[in-house]
Amino acid sequence: MQRARTLHIAPGILPPGPLNAITDVAGVTVGHVTLIEGDAVRTGVTAIRPHPGNTFQDKTPAGFVSGNGYGKFAGSTQLLELGEIETPVILTNTLSVAEGMAGLVEWTLAQPGNERVLSVNAVVGETNDGVLNDIRGRHVTKQHVLDALAACAPGRVAEGCVGAGTGTQAFGWKGGIGTSSRVLPRGLGGYTLGVLVQTNYGGVLTVNGAPVGQALGQYYLKDRLDDRGGDGSMMIVLATDAPLSDRNLTRLARRTFLGIGRTGSSMSNGSGDYAVAFSTAEAVRRTPAQRRGVAAVLDLPNEQMSPLFQAASEATEEAVYNAMLQAVTMTGHGGRRLEAIPAEEVARLIRHHRLEAPR
Amino acid sequence: MQRARTLHIAPGILPPGPLNAITDVAGVTVGHVTLIEGDAVRTGVTAIRPHPGNTFQDKTPAGFVSGNGYGKFAGSTQLLELGEIETPVILTNTLSVAEGMAGLVEWTLAQPGNERVLSVNAVVGETNDGVLNDIRGRHVTKQHVLDALAACAPGRVAEGCVGAGTGTQAFGWKGGIGTSSRVLPRGLGGYTLGVLVQTNYGGVLTVNGAPVGQALGQYYLKDRLDDRGGDGSMMIVLATDAPLSDRNLTRLARRTFLGIGRTGSSMSNGSGDYAVAFSTAEAVRRTPAQRRGVAAVLDLPNEQMSPLFQAASEATEEAVYNAMLQAVTMTGHGGRRLEAIPAEEVARLIRHHRLEAPR
Amino acid sequence: MQRARTLHIAPGILPPGPLNAITDVAGVTVGHVTLIEGDAVRTGVTAIRPHPGNTFQDKTPAGFVSGNGYGKFAGSTQLLELGEIETPVILTNTLSVAEGMAGLVEWTLAQPGNERVLSVNAVVGETNDGVLNDIRGRHVTKQHVLDALAACAPGRVAEGCVGAGTGTQAFGWKGGIGTSSRVLPRGLGGYTLGVLVQTNYGGVLTVNGAPVGQALGQYYLKDRLDDRGGDGSMMIVLATDAPLSDRNLTRLARRTFLGIGRTGSSMSNGSGDYAVAFSTAEAVRRTPAQRRGVAAVLDLPNEQMSPLFQAASEATEEAVYNAMLQAVTMTGHGGRRLEAIPAEEVARLIRHHRLEAPR
Amino acid sequence: MQRARTLHIAPGILPPGPLNAITDVAGVTVGHVTLIEGDAVRTGVTAIRPHPGNTFQDKTPAGFVSGNGYGKFAGSTQLLELGEIETPVILTNTLSVAEGMAGLVEWTLAQPGNERVLSVNAVVGETNDGVLNDIRGRHVTKQHVLDALAACAPGRVAEGCVGAGTGTQAFGWKGGIGTSSRVLPRGLGGYTLGVLVQTNYGGVLTVNGAPVGQALGQYYLKDRLDDRGGDGSMMIVLATDAPLSDRNLTRLARRTFLGIGRTGSSMSNGSGDYAVAFSTAEAVRRTPAQRRGVAAVLDLPNEQMSPLFQAASEATEEAVYNAMLQAVTMTGHGGRRLEAIPAEEVARLIRHHRLEAPR
Repeated sequence: MQRARTLHIAPGILPPGPLNAITDVAGVTVGHVTLIEGDAVRTGVTAIRPHPGNTFQDKTPAGFVSGNGYGKFAGSTQLLELGEIETPVILTNTLSVAEGMAGLVEWTLAQPGNERVLSVNAVVGETNDGVLNDIRGRHVTKQHVLDALAACAPGRVAEGCVGAGTGTQAFGWKGGIGTSSRVLPRGLGGYTLGVLVQTNYGGVLTVNGAPVGQALGQYYLKDRLDDRGGDGSMMIVLATDAPLSDRNLTRLARRTFLGIGRTGSSMSNGSGDYAVAFSTAEAVRRTPAQRRGVAAVLDLPNEQMSPLFQAASEATEEAVYNAMLQAVTMTGHGGRRLEAIPAEEVARLIRHHRLEAPR
Repeated sequence: MQRARTLHIAPGILPPGPLNAITDVAGVTVGHVTLIEGDAVRTGVTAIRPHPGNTFQDKTPAGFVSGNGYGKFAGSTQLLELGEIETPVILTNTLSVAEGMAGLVEWTLAQPGNERVLSVNAVVGETNDGVLNDIRGRHVTKQHVLDALAACAPGRVAEGCVGAGTGTQAFGWKGGIGTSSRVLPRGLGGYTLGVLVQTNYGGVLTVNGAPVGQALGQYYLKDRLDDRGGDGSMMIVLATDAPLSDRNLTRLARRTFLGIGRTGSSMSNGSGDYAVAFSTAEAVRRTPAQRRGVAAVLDLPNEQMSPLFQAASEATEEAVYNAMLQAVTMTGHGGRRLEAIPAEEVARLIRHHRLEAPR
Repeated sequence: MQRARTLHIAPGILPPGPLNAITDVAGVTVGHVTLIEGDAVRTGVTAIRPHPGNTFQDKTPAGFVSGNGYGKFAGSTQLLELGEIETPVILTNTLSVAEGMAGLVEWTLAQPGNERVLSVNAVVGETNDGVLNDIRGRHVTKQHVLDALAACAPGRVAEGCVGAGTGTQAFGWKGGIGTSSRVLPRGLGGYTLGVLVQTNYGGVLTVNGAPVGQALGQYYLKDRLDDRGGDGSMMIVLATDAPLSDRNLTRLARRTFLGIGRTGSSMSNGSGDYAVAFSTAEAVRRTPAQRRGVAAVLDLPNEQMSPLFQAASEATEEAVYNAMLQAVTMTGHGGRRLEAIPAEEVARLIRHHRLEAPR
Repeated sequence: MQRARTLHIAPGILPPGPLNAITDVAGVTVGHVTLIEGDAVRTGVTAIRPHPGNTFQDKTPAGFVSGNGYGKFAGSTQLLELGEIETPVILTNTLSVAEGMAGLVEWTLAQPGNERVLSVNAVVGETNDGVLNDIRGRHVTKQHVLDALAACAPGRVAEGCVGAGTGTQAFGWKGGIGTSSRVLPRGLGGYTLGVLVQTNYGGVLTVNGAPVGQALGQYYLKDRLDDRGGDGSMMIVLATDAPLSDRNLTRLARRTFLGIGRTGSSMSNGSGDYAVAFSTAEAVRRTPAQRRGVAAVLDLPNEQMSPLFQAASEATEEAVYNAMLQAVTMTGHGGRRLEAIPAEEVARLIRHHRLEAPR
């Protein structure tokens, strides 16, 4: 299993950070709980913590976009009203959002300093792993969520069939969790931006522009009378250390879908496609002191946003390829099977594309 | 305990239905589970079923508005994307939304005909009963939600300190569940519209125009240095038998906040104020047959909406007064106590207002 | 002609500023051009400048809410995307929005310092004065807009049948322009907030809670088979010196509709109801220097917003009463006539309400 | 000048209609007025009529999405509130939106049957042609708009440097007007969908996946210290004969931006990116008869939308390539010059991509 970049799949023009992961944004940590049991359980939980502190007391400005709302996303209304998140982000499967919320509420109430907290806006996303997973069995528990939060760590992020990506598909192949990052030139602020995706969607796969889905004979509407095959969902989590307002974080979240478009999705009716973006910059953190009075907050103006927009599209696109390339073939519920995308084939197709086209 | 109308509090100009309740809309049923245990548990669950059938298979067009999003409302993104609900609506307390979702998911998966359902968009609202209730104890369970669904019945709706209103406040007095309805003149369609509210908010109470809050010496900003007292939340559920598109249901939901304004709220920062509206008309029901092809659906055009808008504002206003007048004084967690609003006093104030003013 | 407050109509609990007008917010100026010619021309233009400087170079954070979008409002999409306005706000009649834009563009291009400006987001609202005005004649020209901008002045604001309110109606009586303001207690920031309204809407008029419409026998749905009478539109412009983010300005704008609800509107289908809000605080002004890099901006946190929300609802309600009470009976196009609301009658009804009710 | 498809640039998997143009949707007509005068005038007007009848009386369901709202789009608030358009769509330059509105208002008032019309919601979009055009001179008049409406015709649509695309750029080359269409398989409804774009934006150009911008050495952020070059705007107009609700038309409009992503845009801060979509189906037309009562309207359910989503992305992508390939090198205001994209070079780069990659 290789990542996209080792196969020379490097979307866009901006360089990635050292890990090419959301954890390149300082302070961001990721934890997975992977549930593979017997023939039927193929699911899990992924937790993303925006900073190591008390996320409820020190809230993080955030934005949110619903690309296509056929999915369950807990916490969006308060996130948009107040422009902030006060919990980590939990990803899991469609029928386990309740357990995701319950875990986040319990975790938040138990944090030192939160003894008097009476309200928690849990942020939970999901995709539907019902092809391989016995999703109706609801095997994710509140404890799994607490475990994923406890597992959060900086550094390299496990990708593919882990955490909330354990049982997911992508374009008819095995999907999973993927991540990527971009760093802006110093003259444009030098900010870092990272994306983590949970891929479970479909369409007509293109990989950095190459028509891989058609070349491999597997794509949406291949059979003109079969409208299925494009469905599924995606969850996109974006972090940056740029000091952004919640409005500009929402604008940034919107650009992740341009990267999704580049992978070959047309966001089918049944796809629950959401993006949440937050800023880790201390200078925009909403602390108890900040909430007590008029505070001076840093703000990157509208006019400086464009390079970050480019970074958001690029990192999202690459995160999807990482999710697919790091996934492995898996058999699950009802004996159904999803093949890993054939990386060698992809590499060969891309090689042509890369070497010849831009000449 | 009397209802508003028996005290001659009758907001607006349209007549109510026979029960003056959301259940005047044919097919709508309501169920409560009220949890009062020991000194600390003052909470509950209220379920509203849009029709007696399988709500997942026969979906109901729906609209949604966030008046002020400082609250948790599960299911809004899919509701707005698809313009429909596929579960009953559950109301409970702020920290029990997860249990509300878990209950709705379990109930939906277990309904006959749903054996292959892999995705459920649970619709759950809440207000914060943490003044009287040990909300951090999370005493609501999934089973309570199933019980509330099982308790759903047509006919008179219990109001005041029941179900999700058991522990709530309103304008500094005891709040609760309230309901009201309106019937349009036959020449304007003859439709019925009903509203159910869970009141937990504040402000400067006016009752059908009379400045009751000031007269009774209890209102927001009474102490000019104390900014508290306006907070809280409200959940508004609206049903109608008019054949409406989801867009016009969202427009209808927006009008409920005009009624809220008339009660004296300015939707304080900490208030989670949401309205969900659905149509019970068979002619707009989204059945499996309808989803399979192009269907003819009835549609009340934009130009016919205004009387329903008037009804939505009126019924919401009256539902709030019913919630307060039907509530009783209650002591709860930490020995805190919320007094029932003094109905005699209110009646006296209103009598002046009613008899003299319109002369 | 008296203002509401001299008739002891004083909605809410917060005190007004010295002028009880939007111009209590320092720097805000208002200018009217009133067009009354022959039998048919009853229209005009009202301009509101957020500050005396170059509004294009020194942009003002702003928010916007569409209460009911049956109306033409130029500039909303850019206002919401960038969270700012870069022109004054122009109000006029429904069929003259183009002329409003043309005037604002010309004015902006001609301002010293704007010699290289190639894009202007003109902010123009309207209501339909077609009852009294020959609106199809489009008598407002670009020059009238420039004249209104040139007429902008601080101090007392003319109300009633002036500027964009020249030909409008309200609740079946003559409407017009009205304004009001509120000042927060020093302990809550001491901020000033002002509202200017252009009233052209209807419903079941209540004046500070008193059912004046019913008492005077003129209200929406009085004739149960006649659905007309509630239509029309309103434009609401809100200014404050509080240092607010664009998000919190949008939240503030939303509260103006609670005040509208209190006047007896249910925002009928045909009503174009919009609110735009801006902050005049220097510390949030978006200057060329601010746009060149990361800037520290002041920000009143979410937690401090509630008193401003109360002020927004109150000032809007009172501005409507001022608009109606300051208007005079007018005859216009086609010999149609709108009576001024009988102020003495209103005062008598209110006197009962005021003296008796709060006892 | 060739169109994309003759160069074997054929994005996606669905076939185009006979003209590969928005006019493949029966009833849709397009008219251009092209203004090229002296050294400085390089602008124009493009009109799109949804059907040959009275668009005000027989309104068309419509949807709207703001991809990035740094642009002026007249009519969006009413379009979204009522879910319909009542005028043709006019495209022009940024500083001439007022003239676009004035022309549409005049045209609508003058249509037979509209003698009593007092309110018109003009729909006007724009991009900024200020590189080649003396945009501050505002050379577009109301008459040009009327001329463009009069020029509307079915059949082949002129592309490139015509109408509202006369002076625009795209990715640093000359941009313009482009169009494309898709037809669904009969088993999936057989509907036709067409798109017309006005391209004035930038980014890192990819043509059907091939990195043409990088290969030709012209792309956003090529100079790492120069953040310019991505700006501009795009207007997207989508028509379909599928019987869609306004909500599903808005969903369809959202997919056009996936096609935009595939061309290499990250929707830079300064880009005004809007999409408007309408249905020409008679069965959803909002006629006077329909507005008078409850009407049965056809509705393609959510579950049938996915193939149309795919078509929207594909047609938008191809329309952009047509706009660029049909444009010619132009010199304009201040002697500035925009080169046409070198079609031969593009064809060569694409040939590699097309022949080798999918092997």
